[in-house]
Amino acid sequence: MPCHEVEVMVFPPSKIEDQVTEEETNESPTRFPDNSVKLRNPHIAEMDQDILYHLALGSGSHDLQEMFSDVRFVCMGGTPKRMEGFANFIMDDIGYKLPAGAQLLDISFQSYRYSMYKVGPVLCFSHGMGIPSVGILLHEVIKLMYHARCKDPIFFRLGTCGGIGIEGGNLVISESAVDGLMQPFLELPVLGKMQRRPAILDKQLAHELQGLRQDSDPFSVTVGKTMCTYDFYEGQGRLDGAFCDYTEKDKLAFLNKIHQEANVVNMEMESLCFAALCHHAGIRGAVICVTLLNRLKGDQVSTPKELLNKWQEYPQILVARYIKKHMGLPLNKPQRSGQQVAKSKHAQMVRQESASFE
Amino acid sequence: MPCHEVEVMVFPPSKIEDQVTEEETNESPTRFPDNSVKLRNPHIAEMDQDILYHLALGSGSHDLQEMFSDVRFVCMGGTPKRMEGFANFIMDDIGYKLPAGAQLLDISFQSYRYSMYKVGPVLCFSHGMGIPSVGILLHEVIKLMYHARCKDPIFFRLGTCGGIGIEGGNLVISESAVDGLMQPFLELPVLGKMQRRPAILDKQLAHELQGLRQDSDPFSVTVGKTMCTYDFYEGQGRLDGAFCDYTEKDKLAFLNKIHQEANVVNMEMESLCFAALCHHAGIRGAVICVTLLNRLKGDQVSTPKELLNKWQEYPQILVARYIKKHMGLPLNKPQRSGQQVAKSKHAQMVRQESASFE
Repeated sequence: MPCHEVEVMVFPPSKIEDQVTEEETNESPTRFPDNSVKLRNPHIAEMDQDILYHLALGSGSHDLQEMFSDVRFVCMGGTPKRMEGFANFIMDDIGYKLPAGAQLLDISFQSYRYSMYKVGPVLCFSHGMGIPSVGILLHEVIKLMYHARCKDPIFFRLGTCGGIGIEGGNLVISESAVDGLMQPFLELPVLGKMQRRPAILDKQLAHELQGLRQDSDPFSVTVGKTMCTYDFYEGQGRLDGAFCDYTEKDKLAFLNKIHQEANVVNMEMESLCFAALCHHAGIRGAVICVTLLNRLKGDQVSTPKELLNKWQEYPQILVARYIKKHMGLPLNKPQRSGQQVAKSKHAQMVRQESASFE
Repeated sequence: MPCHEVEVMVFPPSKIEDQVTEEETNESPTRFPDNSVKLRNPHIAEMDQDILYHLALGSGSHDLQEMFSDVRFVCMGGTPKRMEGFANFIMDDIGYKLPAGAQLLDISFQSYRYSMYKVGPVLCFSHGMGIPSVGILLHEVIKLMYHARCKDPIFFRLGTCGGIGIEGGNLVISESAVDGLMQPFLELPVLGKMQRRPAILDKQLAHELQGLRQDSDPFSVTVGKTMCTYDFYEGQGRLDGAFCDYTEKDKLAFLNKIHQEANVVNMEMESLCFAALCHHAGIRGAVICVTLLNRLKGDQVSTPKELLNKWQEYPQILVARYIKKHMGLPLNKPQRSGQQVAKSKHAQMVRQESASFE
């Protein structure tokens, strides 16, 4: 191995500044008087048009207000597949109707980066994996809220995580997020200086969501601290990455320490950025994750795919209840079960017969 | 805005350790005597099976040696669409034949996270956006190389970037990578301590790639330093994110400073991790990116999609030449143009006629 050559220019640590403090003014920095989203960026209003590059949308090319001004709930999760599933689930659950012969479209399909589905007041996105990926999405979605003049939208992340002291198949709602050094803020170098934004989540929203659990649910709901990491393997103390310089004993000592001394109950890879950017934009946000395993007992995700898929519906169930509650809909049954135009189970039989080979 | 509440436990900075130094032993830490990839992780060999969760592959469920032992070139880039395009391009370019009636399969389609195509000795992946996403992929691909007993594989990242002092539509090959504070290493908290890995790329490989440019190419090829960031907007000094606390003058002063004083010629979001993990695994790696714009002149990517798509083929052209050179194939023409079973242009006509509506 060649030795590490030190490069010439490094910005000195003395330039690192803490930007945690907020300005105190009479006018809200994040809301217009009608409660629509205001940006903490004076440049956007001066631009001819704003291209939301990673969403394949633009303020000059699309009537964003016409398309999105009714959005009240923004839901995001890792994979396009999971979020397409959620979009179809919430459509039935809130009884949202498409015209006959129409189906949901991935609005951002031309970007090949994120997927995006709109179901009435609910906007669903996939955010990919990790802080940079969810960060790009949040910048563009917050700008979308501004261009569309959305009023007081609420953001949810519906994710998966490793539980710490919690078995697989249960829910964790993040009370707050910390990084891998237990720092409760998002650090990002900006123009050569370290910027810090507090990763604060809405505690009231977290507890309201927890209160929507029902006794018949097959999962528990814990509100606790989430450690957000920049890596899935070494960053989360796993022993099964391509590299590992520590022992199982070291790993367990670390996990037990953060669990017992600081109430860290799960680990994932997006909450820090989600919390910091929502808070900075004055948007209420919640992170609801299902545990895929108890990290005190192992590292590998070896649960059968079918069961994992079932578990991944649990955050959706809780968020759907919240949405229905705030839309004034009954919580305990979906507005529609199955095909939106089907009058009875015969509809499915008719389709199956039509699809048979004979 | 509520005030920032300071959390209880924070790992003190004194615990941060520099792990840049490499051990010096007679036995290579990254290669077996037959040049196949060895892991710097003693735990993997002790495991019954290793599930490569994000690739939907496993050492117990798949014969990874049978499937992948012939891999010599690993190519990765952001989107599934681009890498599917590259897989089909390289198939014709090196004249790799599939049996009649077969087509390329996305080997990882069940993971819904990365895409993966194999074309003889070339393995193609999409890596998503940002360091955490490419990092998970690299851990699993390096483990895949080990399980498959691949010998001395070379890794390429074929990406897009913002040029600094370079107009859109030209290539940059990274000589080395730095973070947003100009630090030439990847920082990652591991078990509560800051780990640092030098982000070193193979300079010889970079210059060999640069030498494969031909006078008729519509692009220039620059070898220089790459700044790798954790964000596309504020992290790259853009004025058009959801938030911005600085002026255009501040931005240009920063970009000019890193360009003139430190030879930073482009910015992207994966090279630091790619360089650090390849180097730590003893794998030769190169980052070849096409510039989408000159950041000294603007922030928004407003080039028409068709031209962007054409530009994104430029890194592929250069990497394909490298692969053909090292396979002993002629550089200046593809091994096959168009459909692999077509004897002449009539083949396409026959298909078009068959597809006509009458």
